Amino acid sequence: MIRRYSFGHPFQTDAVVKDLPPIHGPVPYFTVENDDCTLACPLSSDTIVYGLGETVRGINKRGWHYCSNCSDEPQHTEGKQSLYASDNFLLLAGKGQMFGVFLDYPGKVDYDIGYTNMNHMAVTVGNADYDLYIIEGKSAEEIVHQFRGLIGRSYIAPKWAFGYGQSRWSYYSEDEVREVVQKHRENHVPLDMVYLDIDYMDHYKDFTLNDETFPDFAEFVQEMRRQNIHLVPIIDAGVKQERGYDVCDEGLENGYFCKKEDGTPFVGAVWPGKAYFPDFLNPEVRAWFGGKYRFLLDKGIDGFWNDMNEPALFYSEDGLKAAFAEMKKLEGKNLDMDKVNYFRELVTGLSNNPKDYESFYHNCGGKRVRHDKIHNLYGYNMTRSAGEAFEKYCPNKRVLMFSRSSMVGMHRYGGVWTGDNCSWWSHLLLEIQMMPSLNMCGFLYSGADIGGFGDNATADLLLRWTAFGVFTPLMRNHSALGTRCQEVYRFPEVLPVFRNLIGIRYALLPYLYSEYMKATLQDTMYFKPLAFVYPQDEDAARVQDQLMLGDELMVTPVYTQNAVGRTVYLPEPMKLVRMHSAQEIQTEQMEKGYHYIPIALDEIVFFLRSDRMIPLAKGGESVPEVDFGDLTLLVNVQHCAAYQYYSDDGCSKDYDNAKNRTCITMKADGTVSAEGQLPVKLDVKR
Amino acid sequence: MIRRYSFGHPFQTDAVVKDLPPIHGPVPYFTVENDDCTLACPLSSDTIVYGLGETVRGINKRGWHYCSNCSDEPQHTEGKQSLYASDNFLLLAGKGQMFGVFLDYPGKVDYDIGYTNMNHMAVTVGNADYDLYIIEGKSAEEIVHQFRGLIGRSYIAPKWAFGYGQSRWSYYSEDEVREVVQKHRENHVPLDMVYLDIDYMDHYKDFTLNDETFPDFAEFVQEMRRQNIHLVPIIDAGVKQERGYDVCDEGLENGYFCKKEDGTPFVGAVWPGKAYFPDFLNPEVRAWFGGKYRFLLDKGIDGFWNDMNEPALFYSEDGLKAAFAEMKKLEGKNLDMDKVNYFRELVTGLSNNPKDYESFYHNCGGKRVRHDKIHNLYGYNMTRSAGEAFEKYCPNKRVLMFSRSSMVGMHRYGGVWTGDNCSWWSHLLLEIQMMPSLNMCGFLYSGADIGGFGDNATADLLLRWTAFGVFTPLMRNHSALGTRCQEVYRFPEVLPVFRNLIGIRYALLPYLYSEYMKATLQDTMYFKPLAFVYPQDEDAARVQDQLMLGDELMVTPVYTQNAVGRTVYLPEPMKLVRMHSAQEIQTEQMEKGYHYIPIALDEIVFFLRSDRMIPLAKGGESVPEVDFGDLTLLVNVQHCAAYQYYSDDGCSKDYDNAKNRTCITMKADGTVSAEGQLPVKLDVKR
Repeated sequence: MIRRYSFGHPFQTDAVVKDLPPIHGPVPYFTVENDDCTLACPLSSDTIVYGLGETVRGINKRGWHYCSNCSDEPQHTEGKQSLYASDNFLLLAGKGQMFGVFLDYPGKVDYDIGYTNMNHMAVTVGNADYDLYIIEGKSAEEIVHQFRGLIGRSYIAPKWAFGYGQSRWSYYSEDEVREVVQKHRENHVPLDMVYLDIDYMDHYKDFTLNDETFPDFAEFVQEMRRQNIHLVPIIDAGVKQERGYDVCDEGLENGYFCKKEDGTPFVGAVWPGKAYFPDFLNPEVRAWFGGKYRFLLDKGIDGFWNDMNEPALFYSEDGLKAAFAEMKKLEGKNLDMDKVNYFRELVTGLSNNPKDYESFYHNCGGKRVRHDKIHNLYGYNMTRSAGEAFEKYCPNKRVLMFSRSSMVGMHRYGGVWTGDNCSWWSHLLLEIQMMPSLNMCGFLYSGADIGGFGDNATADLLLRWTAFGVFTPLMRNHSALGTRCQEVYRFPEVLPVFRNLIGIRYALLPYLYSEYMKATLQDTMYFKPLAFVYPQDEDAARVQDQLMLGDELMVTPVYTQNAVGRTVYLPEPMKLVRMHSAQEIQTEQMEKGYHYIPIALDEIVFFLRSDRMIPLAKGGESVPEVDFGDLTLLVNVQHCAAYQYYSDDGCSKDYDNAKNRTCITMKADGTVSAEGQLPVKLDVKR
Repeated sequence: MIRRYSFGHPFQTDAVVKDLPPIHGPVPYFTVENDDCTLACPLSSDTIVYGLGETVRGINKRGWHYCSNCSDEPQHTEGKQSLYASDNFLLLAGKGQMFGVFLDYPGKVDYDIGYTNMNHMAVTVGNADYDLYIIEGKSAEEIVHQFRGLIGRSYIAPKWAFGYGQSRWSYYSEDEVREVVQKHRENHVPLDMVYLDIDYMDHYKDFTLNDETFPDFAEFVQEMRRQNIHLVPIIDAGVKQERGYDVCDEGLENGYFCKKEDGTPFVGAVWPGKAYFPDFLNPEVRAWFGGKYRFLLDKGIDGFWNDMNEPALFYSEDGLKAAFAEMKKLEGKNLDMDKVNYFRELVTGLSNNPKDYESFYHNCGGKRVRHDKIHNLYGYNMTRSAGEAFEKYCPNKRVLMFSRSSMVGMHRYGGVWTGDNCSWWSHLLLEIQMMPSLNMCGFLYSGADIGGFGDNATADLLLRWTAFGVFTPLMRNHSALGTRCQEVYRFPEVLPVFRNLIGIRYALLPYLYSEYMKATLQDTMYFKPLAFVYPQDEDAARVQDQLMLGDELMVTPVYTQNAVGRTVYLPEPMKLVRMHSAQEIQTEQMEKGYHYIPIALDEIVFFLRSDRMIPLAKGGESVPEVDFGDLTLLVNVQHCAAYQYYSDDGCSKDYDNAKNRTCITMKADGTVSAEGQLPVKLDVKR
């Protein structure tokens, strides 16, 4: 059951798709304090707090203070309070507490989850204008399912986007891209996508191309497609200030950019220096900017990633002027601790400065709204702008889209990558822990930059990260300018291992894609905490480094350098599956309980639940090469098992067609049958 | 066996105390490349690389590139290459490889330990002027023991320094210190030390006092001592530029500060702004600066911490001028990505700029030596300056001394704290992993800032960190300006738990102090990796989050938020000891192997090896209250056991006297006896 409580005058965020009448009366579970701005409740000692989507720390969010405030934050350390997203959904699960809560509010939200006092939670908004949804259900899964119904069906990516992608800031030219593709193909490392970072553009101008380095882009896109490669270019939020550049000119002429109090356009700097920021909250602006994606769609592009849309600001025009003026006062002075800190802060504080977010405005149905009041809607509505355009211009075609900044609501228009992580082992663990939290909030097509974006990767880190990345819907290796190159062929001593690990992804694709599609179509989770599946198991409840995947698997990644294995908790007897390649599979029956499992760098280990089976393909070096109809069942069946297999053409939106489904069953005597309109050829690996 | 190989003209660092004749002939194990600047060797797949003292990452240093380059580095993330120390000792241990290597070299050393290629190591110096020591032995322990003999006996702290200390940047006045002491005493939380950070001084001037906030310091020191509290002030490397300030005046008059190429004193900025840097490599300067500690010794102070001695530089006078000139060129320009990065770097790059370290010189026996060539000797020789003075002015009294920057050699003059860590769970793990590495290099009196220095601590982090801190020789809670206050009484909901955990430290003191003293006197390790004790056990070899303590214990800290226990590997049957307070002890026999052990926030768990026992005291609220002669033996004896118990007056240097030792034995029939000159009263907890 979902109950809506309404405070003040909520801003229409379109995060939810169901129009529930608000209830007048006391809010259950919480004490409403601080002029309706704070919701407070005690935390029982055994209560686990789930949620908040993309943020720092563990699956259990207890013991920290978080802030929903979409931030261009390149250092995802434990001390941070905000990353790029604002996902205001929490789920409290304990013996004495079991409910979900969603705050539909577009500004900053502070969460004190046992930070000030271990046994107390407080959620605080800046203005008491919000909708509060209290969600009750018998189980965590049921509560999440209801919440997902409330916010609407998640974005669905094309099937080819489940291949392996290679990215770098930047591949500067056609030839660099060709080399990446060639190196993968000649080494038989599967590949489906190459990403283009900011340097494919002409001077970082959205919807332009560098004609020198990509002289015939449409033809190049086709050349790549003939090799089963999709090029996926980046789009930034800021529009370069340059007269004669169509996007800039049209935006200025029509008043489409965010404005300062005096009505002139706000100028902030990003990659090209001074830039304007489209007012994505205005449907007219969304339609205009979304239409611009056709520049690339028309050249054969069918996927994008939206970046810098918190929006990130290197500085504002006004802020930079003020900083220079202040710095002059310090020249020639003896700068002691306080003055030197002030001096540093003048410069480092220019980026993403809260004062700048308070200095510009949106036009919301004729009403002027200051940006900081609705800050968390910006990236969401940039991606919505694209999504609405795709719906209009290619209504029955899936376009790949994922975004850096996001908020619940955006999940209907795109997936997310988890932003500018680092080549740190702790960030591999962070990704593992973020995945179920993102899934709860509707973000299913998601993943982190494998190997890490900032800092330098090592071969072993990339191997372990790839071994987990095999299971994430978005599987992309990406790294930053100035860091060690981390394409898998940069590590020749283990290149055959990478070939095998990524090959395993392609063998698993029928299962992974089927689970992803069912999760989107049925409002369920792809990755789940163990506690969601084994709610009575107190040991399972505390596990924060293993994940349930679909209804069949448990994944147990290694995320510690120089480890040769790890401890795994099995909440029930399972079959250990050890894969060295798509073809080499060993299995072993394991008992419930704690086990130390050796897991070498050259293998992927996962666990198959009792009376379950999963379909494997024979493999391939790109998604089109994978035969989703020629399956090998990997089984762990003591009594009988059934698997709902979903597959489709991968590009149209004909998701709900019955011909996409087949029910595969296995009886106690080992006989296998398939019932449904989706034809499959089956063999069994026991 | 230790062999010395000499290249070029090594700088006399005094890191080693034995004068071995150099061997002429090929260096074993390594290929010497790159004009003698690089030592390269393959790494066998099972080889574990230990060493490097204070640096990032795990006990096994494989899979990263490190750099010995003492750095004021406040962000101890995985991507860093250097922290505050330079400990050029490595130990390679595997089936096919077993040797130690020490590079006696005072400049930058690069270590590529399986970074470029997983199976290859390379050690590179800037100039081929160094002594190389190759150490062979049958075991890791034996190699470390030989190395420690080579570098000389470690600094020995007074017994009171094994109490619990409370620190903060800063307690600004006598009254603030009184409040800290009172809060501990009234809540019966043991306490022996309060640390004074930079604000006790007059304008950050070494060897001065703020007369307003500490009006009668000598009397205040005595007032604290009457409550069994030692005040421990900080001393910084930089000397404020201020005419009329004796340290500045004398240094300038005598030419005691480091000089630029033109012979004028180098000016860099730290807390007070512009400052000079004593040339600690000059024995005359060491004698002069060391003598200055008497200003505080004469007021009753008997402990210090030396800080900012990498040396840290906020900026240099010349560097700041140049930065301002460059910044002017950017004013009014459209700063795009490259220009804005350059602008930021102008300011952020001012601190600890390598160019500044290349711009000043030392006077080494009349020879001018550029700082960067001997950079890693600076903090070492600042602390040596103090140590030599203490030896002169109070020859038979132990003075507490630990330093931020260090290098092998300094271990004879002081301990270390591990610098400006953060309130991160990953930094609790980092401390656990640093401890044995530091011990190998001779740093026994050591510990991290419990609860973390930077960022904000939570109650649970502080509880878990305190539970590990109970075992580290230096046990200090310290935090930075601007962060959440983290004295234990700031967390009233768990204050009784802190009282009990810290109380357990005091009950363990007879054992911990005895093990610390034996480790210093016998050149052994206090904390050891499991592999050192169980070299044949392949599982033990891979454990990086448990430590052996002394010859009796294994500690297994919890370092994961919201965990209610952890997996522990037992290389042999042991007795699990679970303490809720000094008085409440439960034990349980455990088998060899992997176990999941519940460990709640309010308890300390450790393991006692077979046929071992440890002495416990009855407790106390300060070290003088602990009766080191009234002992309870905690035993795990199947056959028989012996424990070499060491205790002494705790303040003199009469370490080697036989009256400090007693051998306690327990026979199979349970009878206990003590033989030795140290009188003890014994009872047994079984």
